[in-house]
Amino acid sequence: MLASIAHTVPPRSYGPWEQVAATLTEGLVARGHDVTLFATADSTTSAQLHAEAPAGYEEDPLVDAKVYEALHIAAAFERADEFDVISNQFDFLPLVFSRLVSTPVVTTIHGFSSERIVPVYRAYDDIGHYVAISDADRHPGLTYAATIHHGIAVEDFTFGSGRGGYLLFLGRIHPDKGTAEAIGVARRAGVRIVIAGIVQDEDYFTRRIAPQIDGTSVTYVGPVGPAERDRLLGGAMALLHLITFDEPFGLSVVESLAAGTPVIARPRGSMPELIRHGVTGYLVDDQDAAVEAVQSLTDIDRSECRVDAVDRFSADRMVDEYEALFLSIAEGQG
Amino acid sequence: MLASIAHTVPPRSYGPWEQVAATLTEGLVARGHDVTLFATADSTTSAQLHAEAPAGYEEDPLVDAKVYEALHIAAAFERADEFDVISNQFDFLPLVFSRLVSTPVVTTIHGFSSERIVPVYRAYDDIGHYVAISDADRHPGLTYAATIHHGIAVEDFTFGSGRGGYLLFLGRIHPDKGTAEAIGVARRAGVRIVIAGIVQDEDYFTRRIAPQIDGTSVTYVGPVGPAERDRLLGGAMALLHLITFDEPFGLSVVESLAAGTPVIARPRGSMPELIRHGVTGYLVDDQDAAVEAVQSLTDIDRSECRVDAVDRFSADRMVDEYEALFLSIAEGQG
Repeated sequence: MLASIAHTVPPRSYGPWEQVAATLTEGLVARGHDVTLFATADSTTSAQLHAEAPAGYEEDPLVDAKVYEALHIAAAFERADEFDVISNQFDFLPLVFSRLVSTPVVTTIHGFSSERIVPVYRAYDDIGHYVAISDADRHPGLTYAATIHHGIAVEDFTFGSGRGGYLLFLGRIHPDKGTAEAIGVARRAGVRIVIAGIVQDEDYFTRRIAPQIDGTSVTYVGPVGPAERDRLLGGAMALLHLITFDEPFGLSVVESLAAGTPVIARPRGSMPELIRHGVTGYLVDDQDAAVEAVQSLTDIDRSECRVDAVDRFSADRMVDEYEALFLSIAEGQG
Repeated sequence: MLASIAHTVPPRSYGPWEQVAATLTEGLVARGHDVTLFATADSTTSAQLHAEAPAGYEEDPLVDAKVYEALHIAAAFERADEFDVISNQFDFLPLVFSRLVSTPVVTTIHGFSSERIVPVYRAYDDIGHYVAISDADRHPGLTYAATIHHGIAVEDFTFGSGRGGYLLFLGRIHPDKGTAEAIGVARRAGVRIVIAGIVQDEDYFTRRIAPQIDGTSVTYVGPVGPAERDRLLGGAMALLHLITFDEPFGLSVVESLAAGTPVIARPRGSMPELIRHGVTGYLVDDQDAAVEAVQSLTDIDRSECRVDAVDRFSADRMVDEYEALFLSIAEGQG
């Protein structure tokens, strides 16, 4: 299991790639597989840990990203003969090592940061065993082995009452995520909003978000760890996820459903795959529709959200699908 | 031959790594070796060219450095079985592929951009076959196969009269290279100075250099190609190379000597290995000594500079040394 080394595994707060690597690793170990997790030295895992980087390069300025990415990936490939399959949760760089070993590499594509990285995926399309994280994120020029939606440890999320009297924004503070749009909708609906997440775009935060924070109608609580996230999700009337980009997957969306909290989202990227319009939330085309959705939240049965999260987005379901894929690919090579 | 892909090979103006790769490749082909040059598609070579990147990532904004570095290096290693030895002129990234192939990799270390990249060199010290480009640049924690000074095509440089009535600065405009110091010395010595090279540090150029350019006592001619460089070097009384860092090698220093032009330099890094104090130039500790050196240039015999370049810094000498090293390493593996 080759994890990203931007953050520790599992991540302390932000780190969706590391979170998926952690969930998948724990699930495979629980099923009796012999797993080696390649991750930062400060990671916590039930698998055997192989670390080159002392810490995440986003978390420790002494860790040079390029240097430790190279050492980290090479370490996994130098030990390739020990493994039946390499699960690559690291983006495109490991692909370029994949022709030099006989162990199959299964690459989960966590999204395309830009069209400029597609040439690498295209160059290894024949042996890449690509996994899309949503059908929406499949690139038309590539061949995929499967689409596997992320799963989460649903049991770690408490089914909440949703009676906190606030709407929630949970995610990176970035124009992509529609933080400002969420504030606008909450104001028009006359409901308080709580904002949680790392500031990824400082300029956007300073100009568009910070001036609106007043501690009452608009509150910013910073990045949150698992316990605080659970509490915030459980009390929220809904998650406002008014993204302005084609998001390949939204972990916060399924986490919200696990807490019983419906999601109001733009119908972009993977959102139509994650949210059942009118059942577990609303897909809204514009601000008017979003405000209307807030006013229609009483029509949503929160227990339906929880049930849908358990049925479709549990860690077990994800591990099942990866396990089946790994087995079929390992056998295919044998 | 694995070249850098920042620039085309050979470089149009700036590009010392690419220049060395070009010179070494041409020399090896001339001796009858079967060489494949991995470089940008717009490169020119007598060897077989294998290109992944359409152009240099410093020259074409559409070329993503990380993407094409990965494809470029992988391509060489995927063909490793075809080669007796891989000459790595690319920095540290190819090292992490080296344990995955049986072909020996000889890595020329063109300098350490920072102490933070040393962990990679240390991790592959056992199989790295490192070549230092000067004794001064040897890192105490690493094992080296050889020190090989760069060589240049001395015949491409015309022995000049040095009667242009100006001092020359030739190199990147950057505090490291002492552009401002060179202007100061020229002014104090009462001699015109011509500045040639790319602007690498925009802020330094704008604040320290641009205000001094007057077109008469201080002239800036921008980056120069081979013909213009030859003309500028030949007419210069001396090259002012008042570096403020430990430069691992100075191609412009030996190019200057080839034109018969003495060099006035700080005694840092490789300079004491390149310049014979009092014979082919002066090693000076401070501005006073530099001004004095300008006034003592009549004591230098320009033909001695040329002879020294031919004897010690010819392409032939460099190719001899690399050829011997490659043969001994290839045999050692055989």
